[in-house]
Amino acid sequence: MNDEFTLDPRLANDSIYITDLALCQIRLNNDSRYPWFILIPKLNNISEIIDLSPQQQQQLWQESAALSFWLKKHYKHAKLNVAALGNVVAQLHIHHIVRFVHDDAWPAPVWGKFPAIGYTEEAKTTLKHQFLQTFLFP
Amino acid sequence: MNDEFTLDPRLANDSIYITDLALCQIRLNNDSRYPWFILIPKLNNISEIIDLSPQQQQQLWQESAALSFWLKKHYKHAKLNVAALGNVVAQLHIHHIVRFVHDDAWPAPVWGKFPAIGYTEEAKTTLKHQFLQTFLFP
Repeated sequence: MNDEFTLDPRLANDSIYITDLALCQIRLNNDSRYPWFILIPKLNNISEIIDLSPQQQQQLWQESAALSFWLKKHYKHAKLNVAALGNVVAQLHIHHIVRFVHDDAWPAPVWGKFPAIGYTEEAKTTLKHQFLQTFLFP
Repeated sequence: MNDEFTLDPRLANDSIYITDLALCQIRLNNDSRYPWFILIPKLNNISEIIDLSPQQQQQLWQESAALSFWLKKHYKHAKLNVAALGNVVAQLHIHHIVRFVHDDAWPAPVWGKFPAIGYTEEAKTTLKHQFLQTFLFP
């Protein structure tokens, strides 16, 4: 399926490639205000979770759970926000945002609150390496 | 598990009981601006999706998919927003919000945008009956 997969240009522009799982690509949203990862099923013409087959949905949620476990382990005392919205970018993508009681937008949702603060090149590289060295998908 | 289940008072106050599925209670958020349903696993001390067992997560997403299918069938030309945030109410609850390009908040997420407009008693009853007559969980 990957041969046919086209990433939405806005998602491509606003986020950083981390790795590929069986169904989804993992990307880091380029906003250092919050650790904010995005799962994007590598399929075209899918905008709702229920556009996926039941088997693909199950895979999606297994990948989401694996990412969530990593986030909760890596970021202590965090609350996760897991959300598939897609009002602006129709291509299905599932936000996994690590929230803290002291973050800029808490307790409000993050969307539309503050302009993104991009990562430095060094911070991108460090975070990606940390992720790849410690993330294990069963 | 239901005997032990305590619904968060804020969720109870802001939403209307619709029905019970095997894992979740379905409630209607009392904001007539958007058709907005909430799934709440009937378990205590659960605030993240991954606090559920793998079997419970699978059940949650099956119930979410069934609700989503009903929403897409009942509300034509809608986009779904599916989200587990929980920054204010810690008890795990998964929003299923039907969005339209002409709704009050489009394309922004709905949270914190506008004060809720409660349903009339008649509208509540009608919507609940429509749901119960047409929702089938496999």
